Amino acid sequence: MHRTRVRVVEDALDANNTIARANRADFDRESVTVVNFMSAPGAGKTTLLEQLVRGLDGAVRVGVLEGDVEGSMDADRLAHLHVPVVQLNTAGGFGGECHLDANMVRSALPDLPLDEIDLLVIENVGNLVCPAEFRVGEDARVMVSAITEGEDKPLKYPLMFRACDVVLVNKIDLLPHLDVDLDKLLANIDAVHPGVPRMLVSAKTGEGIAEWRDWLLEQTARAGAPA
Amino acid sequence: MHRTRVRVVEDALDANNTIARANRADFDRESVTVVNFMSAPGAGKTTLLEQLVRGLDGAVRVGVLEGDVEGSMDADRLAHLHVPVVQLNTAGGFGGECHLDANMVRSALPDLPLDEIDLLVIENVGNLVCPAEFRVGEDARVMVSAITEGEDKPLKYPLMFRACDVVLVNKIDLLPHLDVDLDKLLANIDAVHPGVPRMLVSAKTGEGIAEWRDWLLEQTARAGAPA
Repeated sequence: MHRTRVRVVEDALDANNTIARANRADFDRESVTVVNFMSAPGAGKTTLLEQLVRGLDGAVRVGVLEGDVEGSMDADRLAHLHVPVVQLNTAGGFGGECHLDANMVRSALPDLPLDEIDLLVIENVGNLVCPAEFRVGEDARVMVSAITEGEDKPLKYPLMFRACDVVLVNKIDLLPHLDVDLDKLLANIDAVHPGVPRMLVSAKTGEGIAEWRDWLLEQTARAGAPA
Repeated sequence: MHRTRVRVVEDALDANNTIARANRADFDRESVTVVNFMSAPGAGKTTLLEQLVRGLDGAVRVGVLEGDVEGSMDADRLAHLHVPVVQLNTAGGFGGECHLDANMVRSALPDLPLDEIDLLVIENVGNLVCPAEFRVGEDARVMVSAITEGEDKPLKYPLMFRACDVVLVNKIDLLPHLDVDLDKLLANIDAVHPGVPRMLVSAKTGEGIAEWRDWLLEQTARAGAPA
């Protein structure tokens, strides 16, 4: 029975990759750099995005695709920043899925003004397991690990930490109030994904946001450079 | 296409419920009260369990089934408390699932000394979406919402908050250091699940653990009472 299940999962991932390539072609045509932004629920993705967009100050034109099971709270928050935001609910037509996949993202593309943006941030559903399995046509994957979640998460959710191109260790301002060993967390990240860049950030105080912004600008410039 | 998908999901949930009833019959035969313990990653389930077991001080005999994608860190932590602990990894034979289902729990039952325990706590995979969809044969569902995750989680993950019988609002000791509105969180919980008991707890300081323990003891006594 388990073998059949694995086969079904592989077929689903193959189908997903085909659609992810179609998304990729659309993004390339419009020279849009795409980031798949992932974390556990409540790790601070939306607040980090608010900080990012404010700090970019028009240096690149940003658009956001907000993935949530239900509701449009995060999209409403980001709309105040005057960037194009499209809400995608996995509960509406997608069976309440715990992640975004390439087809869901594709369904939202007609609502995104790709020709008017340079950087598209796709905020995935809060979940440390399944989002890591589904590519959506992105250039880079950024994950957030809030320090409040403890130092053991890389060992318990290794696929997510392995799949990403950078780890933002968020809520670093709370460190003095926690029984969490930051060095141990960083060592655990390095154990499952040796050499992956880690940035210590605080969406609350703004610490580390500039470093992340510069990393994103570098990705965007690279995508815009002649091949 | 979406309609076919919904049908497949319904069939899977029907099959799950059949196995959950078989688990339930086994638990009833041995008079074991079973709690399905759920939260986002890093909300503090394992630390709360450590506090609970220490505080029970033998009042009821506890066993733990630890669900994780990979690793046995939590099971190792709990084994020090000298209660029976069985680790269940969803990455081993179950395709890296983001939740426990009735069949996974069933596969672990032979390793659990059901005749020697009164209360079985099943610690689910850290995830606010899919664990709520799969019953495993439990009497009650307890969820943890860490205050650090923000006040909006009930609105973004309503199924989980609706599916549970009690909500532990954990990490309450950190409230003075956060921009989180506790009253708003409690109002949001009440909006999606009117009347559900909420307990403010801190796995760190021990605040509120006695209230939760008494609630569990009441569930256990009820299950043990003659029908």
